[in-house]
Amino acid sequence: MSDEVSAPSQPRWLSAEEQQAWRAWLYSTLLLQDRLDRELTRATGISHAYYEILVQLSETPGRALRMSDLADRCLSSRSRLSHAVSRLEERGWVRRQVCEDDGRGQLAVLTDEGFTALEQAAPVHVESVRTHLFDQLSPEQVRALQDIGQTLQAHLSPPR
Amino acid sequence: MSDEVSAPSQPRWLSAEEQQAWRAWLYSTLLLQDRLDRELTRATGISHAYYEILVQLSETPGRALRMSDLADRCLSSRSRLSHAVSRLEERGWVRRQVCEDDGRGQLAVLTDEGFTALEQAAPVHVESVRTHLFDQLSPEQVRALQDIGQTLQAHLSPPR
Repeated sequence: MSDEVSAPSQPRWLSAEEQQAWRAWLYSTLLLQDRLDRELTRATGISHAYYEILVQLSETPGRALRMSDLADRCLSSRSRLSHAVSRLEERGWVRRQVCEDDGRGQLAVLTDEGFTALEQAAPVHVESVRTHLFDQLSPEQVRALQDIGQTLQAHLSPPR
Repeated sequence: MSDEVSAPSQPRWLSAEEQQAWRAWLYSTLLLQDRLDRELTRATGISHAYYEILVQLSETPGRALRMSDLADRCLSSRSRLSHAVSRLEERGWVRRQVCEDDGRGQLAVLTDEGFTALEQAAPVHVESVRTHLFDQLSPEQVRALQDIGQTLQAHLSPPR
């Protein structure tokens, strides 16, 4: 990719203000991810990463996606996703089937049991997100959060 | 903790705007963490989590911390930190020693080789942070990022 960095001859060190913003972003995101993951796991037995897999499948027509597309949407490596789908298969929430379009590749399909599990986990998850994110922020901060997130996402998203 | 969530009887679902802000935050942070981690690992062989351990030790008087304090500062579980410190010991970058204060507990100590490794990795890391975060944001967005980060950190940080 053209915007990959390489070791610079003259490092562009961060200013004190940038350093503060960077540490605040880093720690707040790690703390928030950790809190959401723990609360979801404790209440439902589903980690946040697994929850995202169920969400992505549930929002697709037929509740099915190619494994490679599912990995892209979950920002996961193929091997990590394959491992996660195996765990979800053991619970009966996802099943794999051969892709009918071309006979090659695999689909991950959300089962009815998986959809029910997602429906039961969703109220817990949204309460966590509201308590630890939206309840803490002013309307201006929410708008800024969306603006910053979309700016960074546009820069970092792989081309489809 | 008093602010732990429980399964609500009436879920406070997100509005369309909140849903957009939430997805933008979630994906942008996952993409940014992944990019920073890959660039640092490719250039230096150190993951971002390991880099953070070296940073925390380097900023402490004597370049040493109790394992429990180091885990807190790195927002890591004790078991995950212990595993990471073992890997860093194999490289000769960190060593463990018995805590002299009380003869119980262990200190993790940054070695001179570990400090040199950190010095060599820092220019690569700061270039990644600048390229993928600060170069993308306006001064107003940087201020908002710091403000939001500090707000969330204050809410989520465990009491010391």
